[in-house]
Amino acid sequence: MIVTAVSDHRAATFDQQELVQKLAAPNDAEIASLDAWWRANNYLTVGQIYLQGNPLLREKLTSEHIKPRLLGHWGTSPGLSLIYAHVSRLIKQTGQQAIYLAGPGHGGPALVAAGYLEGTYSEVYPKVGLDEGGMLQLFRQFSSPGGIPSHVSVTTPGSIHEGGELGYVLVHAFGAVMDNPDLLAIAVVGDGEAETGPLEGSWKGVSFLNPAHDGAVLPILHLNGAKIAGPTVLARKDPAEVRKLFEGHGYDVLEVEGEDLPGMHHRFAAVLAEAWGKIRSIQTAARGGQWDGTRPNWPLIIMRTPKGWTGPEKIDGIKVTGTWRSHQVPLSGVKGNDAHMAELEKWLRSYKPEELFDATGAPVAQIMDLNPPGELRMSATPHANGGLLTRDLDMPDFRDYAIDVKVPAQGRAESTRKLGELMRDIYTRNPDRFRLFCPDETNSNRLGAVFEVSDRGFMESVNDEDVKISNTGRVMEVLSEHNCHGWLEGYNLTGRHGMFATYEAFAMVSASQTVQHGKWLQEAAHLPWRAKVPSLNILLTSTAWRNDHNGFSHQGPGLIQVVLQQRGDVARVYLPPDANTLLSVADHCFRSRSYVNLIVIDKQPQLQWLTMDQAIEHCTRGAGIWEWAGNDDGQRDPDIVLACAGDVVTMETVAAAQILREKLPQMKVRVVNVVNLMTLPRPKDHPHGMAETMFRELFTDHVDVVFAFHGYPGAIHQLVHGRPDADRFRVRGFIEEGTTTTPFDMTVRNKASRYHLVMDAINNAKRLPAGASELKAWCEAKLAKHEQYVVEHLEDMPEVRDWSLGDWAEH
Amino acid sequence: MIVTAVSDHRAATFDQQELVQKLAAPNDAEIASLDAWWRANNYLTVGQIYLQGNPLLREKLTSEHIKPRLLGHWGTSPGLSLIYAHVSRLIKQTGQQAIYLAGPGHGGPALVAAGYLEGTYSEVYPKVGLDEGGMLQLFRQFSSPGGIPSHVSVTTPGSIHEGGELGYVLVHAFGAVMDNPDLLAIAVVGDGEAETGPLEGSWKGVSFLNPAHDGAVLPILHLNGAKIAGPTVLARKDPAEVRKLFEGHGYDVLEVEGEDLPGMHHRFAAVLAEAWGKIRSIQTAARGGQWDGTRPNWPLIIMRTPKGWTGPEKIDGIKVTGTWRSHQVPLSGVKGNDAHMAELEKWLRSYKPEELFDATGAPVAQIMDLNPPGELRMSATPHANGGLLTRDLDMPDFRDYAIDVKVPAQGRAESTRKLGELMRDIYTRNPDRFRLFCPDETNSNRLGAVFEVSDRGFMESVNDEDVKISNTGRVMEVLSEHNCHGWLEGYNLTGRHGMFATYEAFAMVSASQTVQHGKWLQEAAHLPWRAKVPSLNILLTSTAWRNDHNGFSHQGPGLIQVVLQQRGDVARVYLPPDANTLLSVADHCFRSRSYVNLIVIDKQPQLQWLTMDQAIEHCTRGAGIWEWAGNDDGQRDPDIVLACAGDVVTMETVAAAQILREKLPQMKVRVVNVVNLMTLPRPKDHPHGMAETMFRELFTDHVDVVFAFHGYPGAIHQLVHGRPDADRFRVRGFIEEGTTTTPFDMTVRNKASRYHLVMDAINNAKRLPAGASELKAWCEAKLAKHEQYVVEHLEDMPEVRDWSLGDWAEH
Repeated sequence: MIVTAVSDHRAATFDQQELVQKLAAPNDAEIASLDAWWRANNYLTVGQIYLQGNPLLREKLTSEHIKPRLLGHWGTSPGLSLIYAHVSRLIKQTGQQAIYLAGPGHGGPALVAAGYLEGTYSEVYPKVGLDEGGMLQLFRQFSSPGGIPSHVSVTTPGSIHEGGELGYVLVHAFGAVMDNPDLLAIAVVGDGEAETGPLEGSWKGVSFLNPAHDGAVLPILHLNGAKIAGPTVLARKDPAEVRKLFEGHGYDVLEVEGEDLPGMHHRFAAVLAEAWGKIRSIQTAARGGQWDGTRPNWPLIIMRTPKGWTGPEKIDGIKVTGTWRSHQVPLSGVKGNDAHMAELEKWLRSYKPEELFDATGAPVAQIMDLNPPGELRMSATPHANGGLLTRDLDMPDFRDYAIDVKVPAQGRAESTRKLGELMRDIYTRNPDRFRLFCPDETNSNRLGAVFEVSDRGFMESVNDEDVKISNTGRVMEVLSEHNCHGWLEGYNLTGRHGMFATYEAFAMVSASQTVQHGKWLQEAAHLPWRAKVPSLNILLTSTAWRNDHNGFSHQGPGLIQVVLQQRGDVARVYLPPDANTLLSVADHCFRSRSYVNLIVIDKQPQLQWLTMDQAIEHCTRGAGIWEWAGNDDGQRDPDIVLACAGDVVTMETVAAAQILREKLPQMKVRVVNVVNLMTLPRPKDHPHGMAETMFRELFTDHVDVVFAFHGYPGAIHQLVHGRPDADRFRVRGFIEEGTTTTPFDMTVRNKASRYHLVMDAINNAKRLPAGASELKAWCEAKLAKHEQYVVEHLEDMPEVRDWSLGDWAEH
Repeated sequence: MIVTAVSDHRAATFDQQELVQKLAAPNDAEIASLDAWWRANNYLTVGQIYLQGNPLLREKLTSEHIKPRLLGHWGTSPGLSLIYAHVSRLIKQTGQQAIYLAGPGHGGPALVAAGYLEGTYSEVYPKVGLDEGGMLQLFRQFSSPGGIPSHVSVTTPGSIHEGGELGYVLVHAFGAVMDNPDLLAIAVVGDGEAETGPLEGSWKGVSFLNPAHDGAVLPILHLNGAKIAGPTVLARKDPAEVRKLFEGHGYDVLEVEGEDLPGMHHRFAAVLAEAWGKIRSIQTAARGGQWDGTRPNWPLIIMRTPKGWTGPEKIDGIKVTGTWRSHQVPLSGVKGNDAHMAELEKWLRSYKPEELFDATGAPVAQIMDLNPPGELRMSATPHANGGLLTRDLDMPDFRDYAIDVKVPAQGRAESTRKLGELMRDIYTRNPDRFRLFCPDETNSNRLGAVFEVSDRGFMESVNDEDVKISNTGRVMEVLSEHNCHGWLEGYNLTGRHGMFATYEAFAMVSASQTVQHGKWLQEAAHLPWRAKVPSLNILLTSTAWRNDHNGFSHQGPGLIQVVLQQRGDVARVYLPPDANTLLSVADHCFRSRSYVNLIVIDKQPQLQWLTMDQAIEHCTRGAGIWEWAGNDDGQRDPDIVLACAGDVVTMETVAAAQILREKLPQMKVRVVNVVNLMTLPRPKDHPHGMAETMFRELFTDHVDVVFAFHGYPGAIHQLVHGRPDADRFRVRGFIEEGTTTTPFDMTVRNKASRYHLVMDAINNAKRLPAGASELKAWCEAKLAKHEQYVVEHLEDMPEVRDWSLGDWAEH
């Protein structure tokens, strides 16, 4: 499928220098072809913003040809198109596999136009043909209800990068080329986007990129000077300072500037050739054994062209091109303004559409000749439709990593260690398509078994005291949630598998990336031509419930809440209570496609509940009654249901049930554990939602449910809405610390929540046997004793700390 | 209260050069004092991590003196303490007002110790006295249940920066010094933190800092080489490259390195003096009229010292100091390990505690002499307890900006324009304590009236095409939500007022900052010594409902959901439906203290509903029946309640009610609008929660409620949980686009939601008059017609687009 590119070692023997020289000096015919392609792309861009009729300007432009609402972003578009044209020429001459990521994604019409000129758009959307009717369709659909968004988006062939929320173009590009040695990612960074934190934090991708087993990213910083309403920092700094900045980031800085034509075509061709030559030299050396192992200085191009280049210089006497005024729609109020109408027509005709499109409206041969063949077209590269390239992971049998659980809750183990062992063997079996991404916490998260088979990847210098870190490592640790998350997205969207493991509280740092990636997957599901990609797997450890010593900043189960808002066809939330359920869940997630899988489990030693067979059955159902923990013996009518989702709260719930069984045996208690949170909503609200019959089997339809939840209580309130008598769900969950606790709150500073749960059960039970009020008093006393003990001994009292099911006895 | 600092113009006449020279060359007594203070601080740091007894090592160290669980972070602490000691000396000699922000906030014990040595800790927490008993208390409380977190946090005197979630030290520092000309913010950046996106994106603060009216930030990049488990990028790059990077960011880079003593004291004193001299020279020139207006090259110190400096070099034969192994607790397993116990005792005694503390346990005079007086102590500066310095805004009367609403829904207006006018006059009346922060969208958000009185602030070059941007501007626009949010936090926490206005969907970019700041405010509320600060006001415009053309990436009401999880004593969410309610809400928010106020309203022209008097009454109640919109005439028993919260959905709801009144007049419809979302929960769940009697007055206790909500439907499910018969709330809210819409979803691509609401009302009404099924059919037809119209004309059909209450009629 993939055309063999020059990165093949054997191909490196041809005279690269000669090819670079040829690339650097296009002849007149090539310049004419480049310029025609670029003018056509600019024409199609302006057309998308303004026109709903008369697409080829076969008649004089009038009001009825103008869209009722003018939307879109012109300013960045001509620069994006110029780059595209020149990269296409490079691809055609070299066979280089390339993918184009438009950081200034607002320049959507430029990339849509490029896909159209390459023919890909019509292949994917047959209604948008390469003729006059298709062109009109192309124009009308842009930024219209039921049409396409104004950005480079999931609907844009060739894109793996939604350009709406700025900041992620480099992380996506670096992720795309990891373990993808033949791929070159052209990553255009807008100078507006360059101001965002995530983008500034992503230049350092080069400190993690191995020139032998990874591909290359060519960042093109497009300084057109302005954002929506004013200048940008980088555009207004002394250029010498800007150069230093990027040299400081580790790049070999190449600069190109101007607006003269064809001068800029010549200069851009030269600088692109130079950059490509440097990239190929780095790769050839690294792959040919001539590399000293130090981080290469990869090239970066700084391109300075006027914002809105080729658009109207002035409008109503005010300068537009080269200023922020060209950011969106330079000519507004066209309908009913003859001067503006004339100006727009002049602008459109300046590209000479009659030379660019033939009588049928198809691009002329001079334009089509620039396009690379087939899948080398950047709009058609399978790397940007990574599902096409996705190969299943070669998975070991997760049951081989099982903890041998003879009796529930006898021993403690660090559950995530087992996941680490599973991932170790996934690494071994899949040396080119699996990576773990983690902000410096792989060992801390007990996933360190992966280091038995792979170092951390790092291209800066290492020394003798460093452990498991080298330039060939493929475990990715960088203290940036944005980088980790974004790299994995890029890796996923190009068809490879992985996991992002991070601190629960700090998962909110990259929450917007989780949201946006989920949206991408949701939209992609509607496009038949987009093949499903590996799921985004997020593991949250160091959970809220274990961070009382770290304090409030480290406690926050917010990401669960964020994922819950995503659509059911994408969002998955799992709360495995022990190692065997974690293994079963992880196996499922690694095999799945196009989901956001959120797995929450603590890394500390914890009680183990289920045998592997039980775990598999439990995870398959997603929720179930733990008969051995309760005493209702399958009765349809327990006095209370104690439900739980999450590891620590499961322990507290089982402990509470144990207390009730021992102290108040006449009371019938049922324990329900939920491992797949999405079984709780109704089937119409989520595809995993359990059928109402099963819901009634677990929770009855009238007995009160005391629900101990890992996250914010509101999540459960929201999930059971619409279930039979949802008001009977009394949720204890994580609450922010404070003075005004409500009756059903449970705070992480008090691990002895079991006593609260017992009191809740008594307070809400249908029938109360004798001894209930005495038991409540007993619980109150325990809580008081525990609080006092903790202050004195700085840890939980032993009967809480060391509790296990079998050892429980009267204290 | 504040000691007059040298930044007073008149004080600039003394010989600064001489002072810098004196600072740069401490004499032997000063070195001895610095070193004693530093040793004492290191001793107290180690003590906090390990000891629960024997605080002064008066006896041999044994197991019972060691805490049961060893927590905390040693590695970064000695560097933080060294800087602290030297800055204290500078303050004492110069009178400079300074605030210390510890980016590596994990070094909490170092900053807690500093406050203790300065005496502030005992002033704030009398139980932690400057004696042996107090020292023991200091040790025992650290990272313990019921004690203090392991980070620099809200409980730490002198802090405005919680060091748990990394990345925000510079944004907080820059925010703190804006309009604070006498303040110097010492901002220590850890090399781990330096890898985060938000931190990398915050170096550019200097491009926005005016040396005349703002104070200064002195960043100290502390390269100790490692993070939790490995090396850092900046520590392992070629130092020349690192220097270039920061010169590229615009700094005057000073470097200091080493571990020799007293050599490092001499060198650090010299480099700090040099940095301070440069800062003062820049300020003196700018304030004395000798400034050319270009951005100064502010100094930055790169400090290279070993991680865990002064700790055990090796443990069990393995190198610890200078490696990642010293990050947290270098000596673990001390209890029961005689060798480790001896090593710990040797380590503690290496600081010579007997020389540092007197017989009572108080620090000796040599140490106390280093402390600056009173409020110049960094742990006691009122700048770090900004509520002490907060002055109310001089507020214009918001009623003066009212839109004259004679009849509901006759005219459209851009509501946020009125807020812009209000803020314009707040700027004028409060030239030193109010700022607007916005990612390049002030004009786009219709808040541009502020530019009548203030430019955008920008220190890089400007040109003739630039509008309303200059180095004296105080409207802060930078294309970084992280910078905007963080600057405002720093500005708030030092006692000044402001607003962060941003795109609704992209508010998730800085959601973790909203979460963490909310947590800070929650915790601060428990500390009597922390004075309340101005609230964090967040305005979300460009809402989900108006971004169908931009597509899915621009649609997301997620921040509402995030704020809802915060505690009721902090979280506020307002959804004003028009300009007059917006003005009333904004006035309240600007006057409030220590809240997170989230205001959501669109910027587009929208119908205006209430007179100013009505708006004030409505906002005071937070929710109310709009009698004029319904037809139940105050009956206790309407057939349906149509409720709404949010501007667009309010329009759709009133339109739906109008249709029902006209088409099905026998059906009794009540319209309820909610402007303060926090009136919905029960009073025990939120202080704004309306009493149950009021809830019943609005929503009855049995009639079905069709609730049209701006945000995700789950938010309402969660908020009304526990209200009478909460299951009767049928919520239509924002849902992510997709194929499987549920009956109560409402999608933003279909603006004609009114027809859905009418059908919902019919489907859920208590009594159905004749004609109901015909009306449902009519609605279906309308929806079909609308969908067809939109595809054809690229905009809503006129009866939807131009609808107003008075004009409504049969179409």
